[in-house]
Amino acid sequence: MHLGLFLLGTGSHVAGWRYPGAVDSFQDMAALRRIAETAERGRFDMIFMGDNLYADPAAHPSYTLRLEPLTMLSALAASTTHIGLGATVATTYSDPFTVARAFASLDHISGGRAAWNAVTGASPAAAPNFGKLHPNHAERYAIAREFLQVVKGLWDCWADDAVVADRATGLYIDPARVRALDHEGPHFKVKGPVNIGRSPQGQPVVLQAGGSEPGHALAAATADVVFSVVQDFDEARAQYSSLKARLPALGRRPEDVTVLPGVMPVVGRTDREAYEKLAVLQGFVDGDNARQLLSDRFGVDMSGYDLDGPIPDIPLPDTYHSFASVMLNKAKREGMTLRDIYNLTAAARGHWVLCGSAERVADTLEQWFTNGAADGFNVMPPWFHEGFDDFVDLVVPLLQKRGLFRQEYAGTTLRENLGLPRPQRG
Amino acid sequence: MHLGLFLLGTGSHVAGWRYPGAVDSFQDMAALRRIAETAERGRFDMIFMGDNLYADPAAHPSYTLRLEPLTMLSALAASTTHIGLGATVATTYSDPFTVARAFASLDHISGGRAAWNAVTGASPAAAPNFGKLHPNHAERYAIAREFLQVVKGLWDCWADDAVVADRATGLYIDPARVRALDHEGPHFKVKGPVNIGRSPQGQPVVLQAGGSEPGHALAAATADVVFSVVQDFDEARAQYSSLKARLPALGRRPEDVTVLPGVMPVVGRTDREAYEKLAVLQGFVDGDNARQLLSDRFGVDMSGYDLDGPIPDIPLPDTYHSFASVMLNKAKREGMTLRDIYNLTAAARGHWVLCGSAERVADTLEQWFTNGAADGFNVMPPWFHEGFDDFVDLVVPLLQKRGLFRQEYAGTTLRENLGLPRPQRG
Repeated sequence: MHLGLFLLGTGSHVAGWRYPGAVDSFQDMAALRRIAETAERGRFDMIFMGDNLYADPAAHPSYTLRLEPLTMLSALAASTTHIGLGATVATTYSDPFTVARAFASLDHISGGRAAWNAVTGASPAAAPNFGKLHPNHAERYAIAREFLQVVKGLWDCWADDAVVADRATGLYIDPARVRALDHEGPHFKVKGPVNIGRSPQGQPVVLQAGGSEPGHALAAATADVVFSVVQDFDEARAQYSSLKARLPALGRRPEDVTVLPGVMPVVGRTDREAYEKLAVLQGFVDGDNARQLLSDRFGVDMSGYDLDGPIPDIPLPDTYHSFASVMLNKAKREGMTLRDIYNLTAAARGHWVLCGSAERVADTLEQWFTNGAADGFNVMPPWFHEGFDDFVDLVVPLLQKRGLFRQEYAGTTLRENLGLPRPQRG
Repeated sequence: MHLGLFLLGTGSHVAGWRYPGAVDSFQDMAALRRIAETAERGRFDMIFMGDNLYADPAAHPSYTLRLEPLTMLSALAASTTHIGLGATVATTYSDPFTVARAFASLDHISGGRAAWNAVTGASPAAAPNFGKLHPNHAERYAIAREFLQVVKGLWDCWADDAVVADRATGLYIDPARVRALDHEGPHFKVKGPVNIGRSPQGQPVVLQAGGSEPGHALAAATADVVFSVVQDFDEARAQYSSLKARLPALGRRPEDVTVLPGVMPVVGRTDREAYEKLAVLQGFVDGDNARQLLSDRFGVDMSGYDLDGPIPDIPLPDTYHSFASVMLNKAKREGMTLRDIYNLTAAARGHWVLCGSAERVADTLEQWFTNGAADGFNVMPPWFHEGFDDFVDLVVPLLQKRGLFRQEYAGTTLRENLGLPRPQRG
């Protein structure tokens, strides 16, 4: 079983920061270092940081405030030794040369622990910060596919042994072992080579989280790890099978892609204690903040809809897909109201909430893992530190005792710990 | 007196990496951490990392291989406590929203030690890596000026007290204390606000190194620290006076801009020992590697010119200015040959070389500092570690004993140590 830590501001619950004793980890490196050390103590595969490219001060802070992922994870590289470091960078608002060298650099800095979460960037609110128009969904995925191809090509420009550094002859770089890329495609022209040597992992790990059909197709073709958004076991297993089934036709084996559904665990020593914690969190939720979140998730102003009637037909813009459709499908299936979705969204912003005693949480994770719904989990603590410490101190030891999760890291690179081979230079 | 450390790969001498015992610090974090710790032990104001956006494997490695500055300095932020961290990012090949948030993030991560060396990027070799044409010199400076205006505006979007985090009311961000930027200029449209709170320094420090007239004008208008390229005292004093004289008309005081000429010190316990070290270094220089460097510096293929004749009229492209003209002026003034320039370039890539006993080096730095040629120096060690350790262990104590240089840091932010005020929000 593989475990990622989703590191979002003050935790993944919309009001996690209000929990008694919660730390404010949006911009506080001391708190972030403590979280990273806890994750490494819990033998997590990686820390993973989401991103957003705009600020709406009236919206929830998790959409508005954060350290920039690459700088933040580079700093955490210095205070950790084994845990992987996954940073989100959107392909719609960056360029492949910059992204390729930044992740190669993080990979060198961390001794082979870098991962890139390649997202297209769902929100059109980013566009005006870059003087651009937000491309539509299909165009964003076409850009992302070419972007990934260029970045992977740049990572392979240098042979592992291109840096000779021969003091006697004065040859530092062997030019014969470095090549240009000379990419010319519909969206990018990139000559290369990149100005950094091939990194410890050969290629940093690629993460993806897209939930739409183009997102699944891109993940199957290019990702090493997939974060999925699911609400229940059947949905998780269906998504898992569907993704794994795509791989052989693409020349990949099922074990080449690690699928980690997101889960917000609320853990107690007993079920009752866990539910009391969840009740404290939910007590902080009001219609306003949940409605803001839902408007953001749907890309539609939700303030005019009746909270307690049946789910209306909501005209989702084409730029929005996975979160919104997962939530709406679940709501229609289960006869929920908009207020129910509000509450669900507030709890974990659309992700699966797993509340109960450590035994119950471990049982459920084991059931998903052993029955073809997950290769592990992207753990989204509702708040820090207690909300994560509970998982590491109470649940992880059970998973270890059952032989489901490592006691010690298998290696020092993220690929080694994920069981992925180091890629040959293409 | 203020001191910066110029951290370039294996040192600033073209063949520094071949010096017996030299470390290879291009991509080696352990070596880089050791260098940063030495600089902090020597009470340096800051570490400063240059950049380049292309790789030519046949050229000198200092143009071809390096860790990406923002990630590298973020990692060094975690292993240091007081020293400033200056990263180069070119305004021609990035965007202001990304740059503003990355440096604000580094400023948060480091507790107020971030500095941005804003360069336009002289080399046209970068352009094909970004699918662009290289703008001409005037256009690059017009872009840079607007870029700086946008970045500074984004840094001021958030009031210092915009993050309220009031657990009782649930108000995390006070929207009234965050504003958009709504910039629309000839080169950039940026709405803002940026998605990170105002950073410990209010605004990260801005460094500049442009040597042309537009470069000096931009520095006078926007920079906190200027790195200059000079060859002798008279030239340094003239540049210093000229820059300081521009400030009053721009509403700035002379002390608002710290001028640090670059110097490559080769230090021994005696003059003789120092010259022996320099001889070892120069012994590694051959016509080929120096000629490559010179071609790169001039933007002109220099392989056809007679090495030992008088300096020819070299048609410098408009994209190249400061280094080339400094070197050519000096050469014509002093009746040098191209071979002499080769040797000079090889030693310190166009910068001032100061070779001698620790006493002599300290005397010379004192003379420049006390006679209006410098507010301090950008120290460019010829190699690491010995070539830098010598300066910290032998020269710094002399400067301290003479009351010219701090014994302890004055504060924890770079602005505090530079004696610069924390900017009011504009």
